[in-house]
Amino acid sequence: MNEISSMARQASSDLSLADCRVAVVGLGLIGASLCLDLTQLGICREVRGISRSAQTVAMGIRNGVIHQGTTRLLSGIVGADIVVLATPVRAAIRQIRQIRDGLKDGAIVVDVGSTSSMITEALATLPAHVHPISTHPMTGKETSGFDSAEAGLFANALWVLTPLPQTCPKAVVLFSQLVGAVGAHPLTLEAAKHDRMVSAISHLPFLVSSALVHTVAQVSKREPEVWELAAGGFRDMSRVAASEVSMFLDILMTNRRNIGQHLDLFMQEIVHLRQLLDEVNEEELKKRLTANRQTRMNWYAAYEARPRSSL
Amino acid sequence: MNEISSMARQASSDLSLADCRVAVVGLGLIGASLCLDLTQLGICREVRGISRSAQTVAMGIRNGVIHQGTTRLLSGIVGADIVVLATPVRAAIRQIRQIRDGLKDGAIVVDVGSTSSMITEALATLPAHVHPISTHPMTGKETSGFDSAEAGLFANALWVLTPLPQTCPKAVVLFSQLVGAVGAHPLTLEAAKHDRMVSAISHLPFLVSSALVHTVAQVSKREPEVWELAAGGFRDMSRVAASEVSMFLDILMTNRRNIGQHLDLFMQEIVHLRQLLDEVNEEELKKRLTANRQTRMNWYAAYEARPRSSL
Repeated sequence: MNEISSMARQASSDLSLADCRVAVVGLGLIGASLCLDLTQLGICREVRGISRSAQTVAMGIRNGVIHQGTTRLLSGIVGADIVVLATPVRAAIRQIRQIRDGLKDGAIVVDVGSTSSMITEALATLPAHVHPISTHPMTGKETSGFDSAEAGLFANALWVLTPLPQTCPKAVVLFSQLVGAVGAHPLTLEAAKHDRMVSAISHLPFLVSSALVHTVAQVSKREPEVWELAAGGFRDMSRVAASEVSMFLDILMTNRRNIGQHLDLFMQEIVHLRQLLDEVNEEELKKRLTANRQTRMNWYAAYEARPRSSL
Repeated sequence: MNEISSMARQASSDLSLADCRVAVVGLGLIGASLCLDLTQLGICREVRGISRSAQTVAMGIRNGVIHQGTTRLLSGIVGADIVVLATPVRAAIRQIRQIRDGLKDGAIVVDVGSTSSMITEALATLPAHVHPISTHPMTGKETSGFDSAEAGLFANALWVLTPLPQTCPKAVVLFSQLVGAVGAHPLTLEAAKHDRMVSAISHLPFLVSSALVHTVAQVSKREPEVWELAAGGFRDMSRVAASEVSMFLDILMTNRRNIGQHLDLFMQEIVHLRQLLDEVNEEELKKRLTANRQTRMNWYAAYEARPRSSL
């Protein structure tokens, strides 16, 4: 039995990407954009799309985003070599339970959620004959859904991979090839570390952006012209507040401790700046604001210098 | 005496824009961009640049940004019909004192600072034979200085005008023509109201952005890879933290009360979100985040629909 399972694992992870059937569950921004690249660039043998909405499936087929589609999760994953769960984190956790008995021997199962620890726990419950990887493509935009999908969305993005102890290294190599084929750069990270870091650079900024919109909305009750004055600075600071709420609720609920700690750190600094302002402590204000300015300029220079994808 | 003064005022405000000599004090982002549009579009008779740096003056002349230039404030404004103080708020307040005795009868004197109340007080001390207007072009970017200047910077921006009781309406009309000539839209606002509103949509976001960079920098001490993961969301949320500190210190110091009040409002909301997260109160979190998302989407739709300048 062990031998057969081992052979099955071996067989599947020796597949080349071009031989793979890929099933993408969820045709939102990430799922549909991934399908679009996979089909348009001819990266794999077959691209299947699974969505709750028959209309979305129909659009996917009509627009050539997917080769095949269905609204039925279990039918959709039959025989798939790679299953990508491109649904909000808690939906993906439910789907992991639903698909466990229908997965092909040796199948690679990945999610693309923004938090990793809870998904990793769920993936660890999958049978030994499949290869789970928790993954997170570090890209996106504030609009969501099938209609927001775009070719090249992953170009030059980091794509974090968190393999489980049970995951065959060959499976990681194969999925890394897929990541590279859509122009992204794979980076292996431990789940807890990933969740701490994305809390700081993505989940905290979302809450801050939302709170800022709330504050301006309160000011606007007495002075509605404030909306007319708002320009580029407010536009950039409020962009992520327009992100899909259901996706972010899942993120917040599955990364609460890290986000709470980072909110506390952030609040301490806001309180500190408020105090310096009260005290008219220009010297210290200048020091802190200058240090933050320099930090941002250094980061931005490195960010801009990142290699651009050829896609 | 009153009659002569009245005649002088009359004379100057009957000038057409094409007849005007404009002196711009400070050749940073705003000052140099304004000179560039004025010279390139041939909007007025003469464009003079005044800068502390002889090198900047020389560059301005060499690149055709200004017709004439000097490092001497008082020489620069002699005979100017319109004097634009394009220096940080507190520098402009000092310069108002310095130039008061050298201004031509009927001259229009404007600043372009981001806070209005303190400038307005200073402008009110100018002699009765000149026409002061506190103004604020609602544009900019995070880079500063002469090298950041660009043609068309004011295209489609609001340009707030706060005339003083002593200001002749014809002077406001003339300066509004200049505003329109560089593609911006004049909007008349009371100083106190202006300062409250820009505090909410510009000064608060600056401090929030800076505090966010500070927070990520603290996280990076233990996890330096956080900088590699940071992408579009962090890029947008941190952009204004890279703004020129000396300019913002002047803003913070001349608009302390409003900024303090808005920091308090903002902190209340952050504390509230933190509490909802602690309580796992998804329903209320969803309600607030959805309302903020909708607010931002409504604002952005209106912002994007603003008429585009023909410049």
